[in-house]
Amino acid sequence: METKARIAVLGGSGYTGAETLRLALGHPNLDVRHITADRHAGKRMGDVFPHLGDAGLPALIKIGDVPFDDVDAVFCCLPHATTQEVVKALPGHLKVIDLSADFRLKDPAVYEHAYGRPHGALELQAEAVYGLTEHARDALRQTRLVAVPGCYPTGPQLALKPLLAAQAIEDDGIIIDAKSGASGAGRSLKEHLLLAELLEGFQSYAIGTHRHIPEIEQGLSEAAGEPVRVSFTPHLVPMSRGLLSTIYVREKPGSDRGDLEQILGEHYADEPFVRVRTDGVAAGTHEVRGTNRCIISVHADRRHGHAIIVAVIDNLMKGAAGQAVQDLNVVLGFDETAGLGATALFP
Amino acid sequence: METKARIAVLGGSGYTGAETLRLALGHPNLDVRHITADRHAGKRMGDVFPHLGDAGLPALIKIGDVPFDDVDAVFCCLPHATTQEVVKALPGHLKVIDLSADFRLKDPAVYEHAYGRPHGALELQAEAVYGLTEHARDALRQTRLVAVPGCYPTGPQLALKPLLAAQAIEDDGIIIDAKSGASGAGRSLKEHLLLAELLEGFQSYAIGTHRHIPEIEQGLSEAAGEPVRVSFTPHLVPMSRGLLSTIYVREKPGSDRGDLEQILGEHYADEPFVRVRTDGVAAGTHEVRGTNRCIISVHADRRHGHAIIVAVIDNLMKGAAGQAVQDLNVVLGFDETAGLGATALFP
Amino acid sequence: METKARIAVLGGSGYTGAETLRLALGHPNLDVRHITADRHAGKRMGDVFPHLGDAGLPALIKIGDVPFDDVDAVFCCLPHATTQEVVKALPGHLKVIDLSADFRLKDPAVYEHAYGRPHGALELQAEAVYGLTEHARDALRQTRLVAVPGCYPTGPQLALKPLLAAQAIEDDGIIIDAKSGASGAGRSLKEHLLLAELLEGFQSYAIGTHRHIPEIEQGLSEAAGEPVRVSFTPHLVPMSRGLLSTIYVREKPGSDRGDLEQILGEHYADEPFVRVRTDGVAAGTHEVRGTNRCIISVHADRRHGHAIIVAVIDNLMKGAAGQAVQDLNVVLGFDETAGLGATALFP
Amino acid sequence: METKARIAVLGGSGYTGAETLRLALGHPNLDVRHITADRHAGKRMGDVFPHLGDAGLPALIKIGDVPFDDVDAVFCCLPHATTQEVVKALPGHLKVIDLSADFRLKDPAVYEHAYGRPHGALELQAEAVYGLTEHARDALRQTRLVAVPGCYPTGPQLALKPLLAAQAIEDDGIIIDAKSGASGAGRSLKEHLLLAELLEGFQSYAIGTHRHIPEIEQGLSEAAGEPVRVSFTPHLVPMSRGLLSTIYVREKPGSDRGDLEQILGEHYADEPFVRVRTDGVAAGTHEVRGTNRCIISVHADRRHGHAIIVAVIDNLMKGAAGQAVQDLNVVLGFDETAGLGATALFP
Repeated sequence: METKARIAVLGGSGYTGAETLRLALGHPNLDVRHITADRHAGKRMGDVFPHLGDAGLPALIKIGDVPFDDVDAVFCCLPHATTQEVVKALPGHLKVIDLSADFRLKDPAVYEHAYGRPHGALELQAEAVYGLTEHARDALRQTRLVAVPGCYPTGPQLALKPLLAAQAIEDDGIIIDAKSGASGAGRSLKEHLLLAELLEGFQSYAIGTHRHIPEIEQGLSEAAGEPVRVSFTPHLVPMSRGLLSTIYVREKPGSDRGDLEQILGEHYADEPFVRVRTDGVAAGTHEVRGTNRCIISVHADRRHGHAIIVAVIDNLMKGAAGQAVQDLNVVLGFDETAGLGATALFP
Repeated sequence: METKARIAVLGGSGYTGAETLRLALGHPNLDVRHITADRHAGKRMGDVFPHLGDAGLPALIKIGDVPFDDVDAVFCCLPHATTQEVVKALPGHLKVIDLSADFRLKDPAVYEHAYGRPHGALELQAEAVYGLTEHARDALRQTRLVAVPGCYPTGPQLALKPLLAAQAIEDDGIIIDAKSGASGAGRSLKEHLLLAELLEGFQSYAIGTHRHIPEIEQGLSEAAGEPVRVSFTPHLVPMSRGLLSTIYVREKPGSDRGDLEQILGEHYADEPFVRVRTDGVAAGTHEVRGTNRCIISVHADRRHGHAIIVAVIDNLMKGAAGQAVQDLNVVLGFDETAGLGATALFP
Repeated sequence: METKARIAVLGGSGYTGAETLRLALGHPNLDVRHITADRHAGKRMGDVFPHLGDAGLPALIKIGDVPFDDVDAVFCCLPHATTQEVVKALPGHLKVIDLSADFRLKDPAVYEHAYGRPHGALELQAEAVYGLTEHARDALRQTRLVAVPGCYPTGPQLALKPLLAAQAIEDDGIIIDAKSGASGAGRSLKEHLLLAELLEGFQSYAIGTHRHIPEIEQGLSEAAGEPVRVSFTPHLVPMSRGLLSTIYVREKPGSDRGDLEQILGEHYADEPFVRVRTDGVAAGTHEVRGTNRCIISVHADRRHGHAIIVAVIDNLMKGAAGQAVQDLNVVLGFDETAGLGATALFP
Repeated sequence: METKARIAVLGGSGYTGAETLRLALGHPNLDVRHITADRHAGKRMGDVFPHLGDAGLPALIKIGDVPFDDVDAVFCCLPHATTQEVVKALPGHLKVIDLSADFRLKDPAVYEHAYGRPHGALELQAEAVYGLTEHARDALRQTRLVAVPGCYPTGPQLALKPLLAAQAIEDDGIIIDAKSGASGAGRSLKEHLLLAELLEGFQSYAIGTHRHIPEIEQGLSEAAGEPVRVSFTPHLVPMSRGLLSTIYVREKPGSDRGDLEQILGEHYADEPFVRVRTDGVAAGTHEVRGTNRCIISVHADRRHGHAIIVAVIDNLMKGAAGQAVQDLNVVLGFDETAGLGATALFP
């Protein structure tokens, strides 16, 4: 392989595909060779995403027309279910960074329950590494298939895994009240996502049934060493990007807010993309816009023995394309921060 | 008193004052005689709020210049602390609907703790009726001083008081995760409230310390018949109006989601402004924009024995000026819905 | 006819239909008997527009199922082209207030050129009254078919017709730079109307080709007494409602800014819904949100002999449903302001 | 000088200062040594701008405390009037990139008329190079003081200068209808800039009197070779960033839309930051968000002999900090695109 990895982006007409391309354009070691889009094949990127119209990207083609010999790695930004069929058919030399939900759940029964159909590529699922980068580096270095975490699961897992592993919080009674910008819903044409309808609207949805729940529980259970069950309520915020999770936990006897903050602070002390804020101010999504960062803060609950943890990310970055690039950087042995150095765009 | 009550609005240059005036203009029984504004005295309303510039409202004067003999009732839209001094000095014949926090807390010690100073009008505080209309009609009919509830406390109290009174939910462990539009912060000139900074930002603030907490706990404790302590986390949403509370509760043994929904449904069956939604869809703030309504929905938590309740209001309406007008309607014996019949403005 | 007119709203699942229903609910003389929606027939209004879910409105039915004997007037909120077929088939006793573009253009050739097809109901088109209310009252009192003006044409016509009629401005060289909120695009599912894409985007579109151009020119030509040709550039603003037109005109020799202001001021002195602002401040859309008003201000251009006129409306109100109700009020002899008394919703 | 230029940012607590710092952090040849802020001296950057809180920037100090021996170049992001006093006092070895309005106007009388006071540093004003980079490279290479153009003047000058120089358009009758996001107003605490008030409001302001007018006219006159007078109307858009100018021009006899497009296309063919769009679609601000680009499109007016030109920039980038960095790159002989390679952030 050359210093520059030759990549293909499968599914370039959605938000995660476009964001992956934006990052690839600013990445010193990535060279975008091919972009696919089923319905839009034949168009130029600028027809689908005007902001990428002048970047010299290749035109959109069908997956079947990609000469994969010419490619080292693919970012797979396709819908779930479709994805497993596509990945199964890819040549074995490719590194595959998959942004769909298809390879995230280890337990086939959990997958089937969440997605209403049996998994169609169980061997690949078994092989896939769950790419929550800060908690998966060793495995990432040895895999060719990465399941990039979902947007909602990323913040809560980064915040809670070290605390559960350290036995600092109880593993039952965890409540995650999550709020996401509209780009988290993808480029889907639904009335409630129109600006005219959403601009002055704030709403919750899929209470207790969101498909990201088993993914969160899988990660937390692994950290806790026993099954963890959470309450999870997503909300839609009238903004484009940003995802904030307000997490309610019970401290184990002997632990207090300061302990939780310290555990997290030490765990992530050397991490380039995770910051534990200790000045008492809860992070806002504007601090991470356009960046691959997760900011976590720990607050005292008024109820003795409880704490409130806030975690923010940019849902398209650390919640999708940013983490995908971070994962590929690890897989290919690049500097993990390559192409991900942006400071937040504010105001 | 004539069929039209003659009113004065004290503090017409803030959002609650302006909203009260907007409602008074559409109210068949209210006649705005005087509007005060300390700093802006001498100006016309249109100088302070252009949208009211053509409504034929009186110019702004100082409180000292109001001929109160000419007035039947006042809406007091002044800052807390100032309010108690002003109300103390008002003539006794006036009905006073106070939108500040000054007369909401029954316990002087709680007030002093929350506001950092002793209360300056304890007799008035004792006399004041807490105007959560649906739960205070009898008292409202006999009082001359109403403390209009705060924006955050309104939804959770409407949702939880019947459930606590019916012993359907546990009175400990209640978590209120609240999200408010920016008008809830008032017309205060702070950088983080500028559109340029807030538009793509979602953030929490005052975690565990917000001054509305004792007010919520006072109302819930009254309903429960014993002290209730809640966890309360407010968030700021990049929108103008709207307030959604996501409330996590534990059911008492023998109660389930359906029971909670039924208790609320029956309790509010005949209420014009409270609706319990039973179609499984969680309400959004766009459904109540510009109205005096509170919409409540009850959802199953994934954790057995728990439920999630969503309550939405327009923070300037049922959360402030709307409820203030509703209270005055009761106090003066008008039709309770007079001036409050608006359908939500959407999109 | 009873004091209450029995109405049907044809096309209740779009924004103009919903807004007409919102107004009808607050109208003392209108009684909504039937609502139609082709694709959504069988649903309740609350399924299509949650904010109307609790208003006691009839369920959606197909047009063919409306018992028109039971109806006095219809608001027709259907797509253009479809409309003319539907209106042709309606019983003759009905008053028809049509919010589509189908009956606005008097000249069949102009219609055909703009809409790419011959008109299918030329007799009705000849009979229809163009319902720019302030300029059409006499005709409205004697018609049964009203073509409600488009959103873009309303403000510029209100601002320019009196000036052209008074020979105060030149009839060539008029430039209209218009900016509309996203609800003006209707409830159409297009990617660029998604909140995620539009929120931080401002863009122009259809430069020089928008179908509202012939409608504007028809009205201005009528006032000028000779053909007027304008330059018209629409823009899409990241907000839900509101439409502002910045209009560049040349004064006739002998006229100056003050003259234009005076002509407009006198022309509209007694109008309840048109206000000429004379304090030098240009109106903003927030001053008319939710109202049926048009605010006009006249400003000096730096170029001698030129002036700049700003006109704002709420595109769904005076730009659609509000003017439709105003028209019906005139047609049926009701108080022209009935149901339209709202003060702007701000903030 | 080392490969890295050591810079100071004077005025780090406003939007242009913050944006300059954001760019400097991603610039391979800039090393931020000092940041000043008068009122906020003593604070850390993260106290003033949380999104810069973790970037390792120096704390804020007073200008008097900057050891300028340690500095090669300063970005001056101070208010006008203050700026000229500060710059006068700076050591002579410094390259000064000034983002204020103080050194933009060549004619002292024009400055005095626009700013209501005589200029206090006329020698510096004479020396300053107006840094519209694409039109000023030779002068930039030889100066030590650059006046970075204002946000509104940048797009129209880039669009019109080549056309005036080529005698393709008339130099009278130019109308610039400009629309800016709220960050263009700076971090000023004004009620109409609060999200609650601006979110659903679109408004024009300072019609015919904006201080950017003489700056625009200076640049256009220079290109035309004779005095050009324009009509300029700014508007405030409810978005954070982005500035779109809709420009109405008359073609010289013999020129048509295609000629204008061709002249601009050829003029900017090799420019990295200026793109002439030729697909008939007018550019939107979302295509340039976070980038240093200007996109221009030329459209036919319906009036024969006229054309409409649209130019978009990010007001904080090509309209302020981005162009400032581009200017410094030229002054110091760096790659002109260094630190400015970002692709637009969308959605």
